[in-house]
Amino acid sequence: MTPPVALFFDIFGTVVDWRGTIAREAEGLFGPGFDGSAFADAWRAEYQPAMQGVRAGGRGFVKLDVLHRENLDRILPRFGLAELGEDRRAALNLVWHRLDGWPDSAPGLARLRARHRLAPMSNGNISLMVDLARHNGFVWDAILGAEIARDYKPKLEVYRAGCAALDLDPRRCMMVATHTDDLIAAKEAGLMTAHIARPDEHGPGKGEAGPAGPVDIAARDLDHLAALLGC
Amino acid sequence: MTPPVALFFDIFGTVVDWRGTIAREAEGLFGPGFDGSAFADAWRAEYQPAMQGVRAGGRGFVKLDVLHRENLDRILPRFGLAELGEDRRAALNLVWHRLDGWPDSAPGLARLRARHRLAPMSNGNISLMVDLARHNGFVWDAILGAEIARDYKPKLEVYRAGCAALDLDPRRCMMVATHTDDLIAAKEAGLMTAHIARPDEHGPGKGEAGPAGPVDIAARDLDHLAALLGC
Repeated sequence: MTPPVALFFDIFGTVVDWRGTIAREAEGLFGPGFDGSAFADAWRAEYQPAMQGVRAGGRGFVKLDVLHRENLDRILPRFGLAELGEDRRAALNLVWHRLDGWPDSAPGLARLRARHRLAPMSNGNISLMVDLARHNGFVWDAILGAEIARDYKPKLEVYRAGCAALDLDPRRCMMVATHTDDLIAAKEAGLMTAHIARPDEHGPGKGEAGPAGPVDIAARDLDHLAALLGC
Repeated sequence: MTPPVALFFDIFGTVVDWRGTIAREAEGLFGPGFDGSAFADAWRAEYQPAMQGVRAGGRGFVKLDVLHRENLDRILPRFGLAELGEDRRAALNLVWHRLDGWPDSAPGLARLRARHRLAPMSNGNISLMVDLARHNGFVWDAILGAEIARDYKPKLEVYRAGCAALDLDPRRCMMVATHTDDLIAAKEAGLMTAHIARPDEHGPGKGEAGPAGPVDIAARDLDHLAALLGC
């Protein structure tokens, strides 16, 4: 395998722990009896359907922040929070901007950056990626992904737009994700692929402990990926 | 003055020394008798007219790399280099990706980044900005500018697209440049403005030693800007 010039990263689940962070924040806001994990799961469950309107072309591109807010408004009544005020909704929606990285993420990215260009290839918007990077000490070479392409993964154009922004043939780029479907799409767009095990993404034992399809590299975490790439 | 949340930087001339770097590289390539400074000036003189087709709407957006290459092809015959081969033209065109920063640039940016979000707001394309950052050790929060807006400064939409990407009102953003015309446009788009003195940009004594119009801050260099902003 020719070493990739650029590594593109899925973020939610692969680099940051959305479920744990949202659960902790929700329990802090709504009290210890509140089921923060169920709340996080419910919010995230709206994620894929919400992007479908944009992917299918019926709705013009809107930032993920907008979709997250619509999804929040949809789930709040189910958690007895139908009366939550506008300011608190807006503040809560920004929890996606301050998700905590997995323990290996910041050191693994720093190690990988010594030899590769690194960019998020996320459905999250640019400001969200900027805030996550500041919160966790990630250093990116550029922020690529949905907002650059004005469409959502797994549309192939999103991966291709990222490669084009760096003037790179897709074969010189590698998509890094814990979601096999993301990697299958990236592979179809011509990129190399690396799977990262996040066995607890959706709760203990509820995540992809390994790839469910063919990938170029399967790594335990980002530090292991760096080792496998010879960094 | 409310401190800006984000600082947007003009790059060519403000952060990096295009003239000195291109002159040195051209003299290295074409021999000590070659007038590298005249070559750099001639290449740069084609810059503004080349963008005009895109700005006026007659030509769809193309990356600055494409315009730089067209401009190079245009000036080579004037320097007795009409026969320069394709590979050497392509390699020479990438000199814009490895321009050297002014001595204060890397330390000044590092100091500013402790309290502000930093992004290029350049007409250079994303890959060019990525390469300049790697070459000089700059750390950006995001790469904004022409390629994000798919138009060229000083069109107001370019500045506005950068603010929108960070979810910021233009009044919370500051444009930093050594070119007063860039700052006048940014001010019209609603941004705060900071002028950086680069008195030798176009050769000794041939640059803006101070702003030629009203700005919020006039600084000697990026380190001085950091001091004036209280970093």
